[in-house]
Amino acid sequence: MSLTLSTAQAIIAEAFDAGREREFKPLTVVVLDAGGHVIAAARQDGASNSRFEIAQGKAYGALSLGMGSRALMERAEQQPYFIAAAAAAIGGRLIPVPGGVLVRGDDGALVGAVGISGDTSDNDEAAASVAAKAAGLTPQVA
Amino acid sequence: MSLTLSTAQAIIAEAFDAGREREFKPLTVVVLDAGGHVIAAARQDGASNSRFEIAQGKAYGALSLGMGSRALMERAEQQPYFIAAAAAAIGGRLIPVPGGVLVRGDDGALVGAVGISGDTSDNDEAAASVAAKAAGLTPQVA
Amino acid sequence: MSLTLSTAQAIIAEAFDAGREREFKPLTVVVLDAGGHVIAAARQDGASNSRFEIAQGKAYGALSLGMGSRALMERAEQQPYFIAAAAAAIGGRLIPVPGGVLVRGDDGALVGAVGISGDTSDNDEAAASVAAKAAGLTPQVA
Amino acid sequence: MSLTLSTAQAIIAEAFDAGREREFKPLTVVVLDAGGHVIAAARQDGASNSRFEIAQGKAYGALSLGMGSRALMERAEQQPYFIAAAAAAIGGRLIPVPGGVLVRGDDGALVGAVGISGDTSDNDEAAASVAAKAAGLTPQVA
Repeated sequence: MSLTLSTAQAIIAEAFDAGREREFKPLTVVVLDAGGHVIAAARQDGASNSRFEIAQGKAYGALSLGMGSRALMERAEQQPYFIAAAAAAIGGRLIPVPGGVLVRGDDGALVGAVGISGDTSDNDEAAASVAAKAAGLTPQVA
Repeated sequence: MSLTLSTAQAIIAEAFDAGREREFKPLTVVVLDAGGHVIAAARQDGASNSRFEIAQGKAYGALSLGMGSRALMERAEQQPYFIAAAAAAIGGRLIPVPGGVLVRGDDGALVGAVGISGDTSDNDEAAASVAAKAAGLTPQVA
Repeated sequence: MSLTLSTAQAIIAEAFDAGREREFKPLTVVVLDAGGHVIAAARQDGASNSRFEIAQGKAYGALSLGMGSRALMERAEQQPYFIAAAAAAIGGRLIPVPGGVLVRGDDGALVGAVGISGDTSDNDEAAASVAAKAAGLTPQVA
Repeated sequence: MSLTLSTAQAIIAEAFDAGREREFKPLTVVVLDAGGHVIAAARQDGASNSRFEIAQGKAYGALSLGMGSRALMERAEQQPYFIAAAAAAIGGRLIPVPGGVLVRGDDGALVGAVGISGDTSDNDEAAASVAAKAAGLTPQVA
């Protein structure tokens, strides 16, 4: 099973719905395939310049180390030098705060990751999880 | 006037429609704001891994030098060392072949750029132009 | 279907066998998954320092643009500035000469790529194709 | 004396054996020559995308500063800015946690390094040390 563009766009729409309902700030959502390559992205009006890179880094970092970006934050709090070095080793695409969520299909197989940036990291993560579930996938936040 | 997410998503949908009608290969479309930052992107199923980076480079390069990527190609054919150096100077985000199109609003003001990759460069450019027009914008290919 | 380490190591062993039979120079073989990430690599004694990077670039570039690296060479001969720019856009991991071969499973699905460097590009490609077939996969050289 | 491919592959096989016996998570092993260039690498099924880069960075950083990556961690805890700057200076290939082990021959001469990533850093290092010894080399962890 792979993550289709149709599913990626559904995740984005669901995340925006969640953000509107909860009155989050403008969100940017990036959906990556299991290899870390962009399938779809959208930045809501009013979001600042580099939200794409932040959201991408949450999702890419999650896939790189095989854990949701909340776990990357926990590691960064214990060993900031490790996470800084890992980010450098993979071209800077690792943002160690919540909002980068691995997504799995029915059989548990990893199919990609969702990264969201714009509101608090906790809220970004909540939107990613809600959106992944609404699209029929299982999110992994840590 | 600025390019909204709604318009960017309309451009993507129109480009995919154009691609389907003309039986193009799977396309990847990236829409950037006037500052060169990602507003929206989508990669159709079956497109290869790095099509986002190629489409982004067409659009980003166009904005960087203020001309559609067809003009970047013409410059590359005359002075390849200039385009290679310019690409290096801006982090590699300059792909000098057609398919990166500047887009302008009613008043002629630059609002962003559309980059497409997937079929021949000429077809990528045709899809970008058609899509920009269908979304009410004026494309500039060179 | 995904490419397992066991299959990747079989490809490497088969490529070395092919190289020995044909009296090729020392070869370096890199096997990537469909996302472009290293599964396995081996550099034969006597191969020069950066053969890993050359072999990786053949395979990574092939996956990035969805064609064997022989097709990347043909494109480079027509539009060297495009290939140079594409390489820069993906971090330099694109080597446009034969020896980077896409590999597909029984159902035709892309599962990864094999890159080989060390002898002539044609011989590198021949070793990659022979090795992929011997491991039960279908190689795509262009 | 130099580190042959045959020895490098033996180190990888021994590390995987150690990982299986101790029920470690999937490991990625990278073996570098004394110049820091890849001789062999293998990523076990189930390991996340960028484990090659992490394992490589442990081994490359160790060779770069002439100490096992455990010593790099100790330095990072005292002077994080030094390690961050050193990593940047060498292209990001320095991961300052245990698991990067220098390896020496009978005469004490440095012949290369082994980097492992996948389980805890302490376990990664244990696997590297066990594997180096089993292959007839002397590991240096700090």
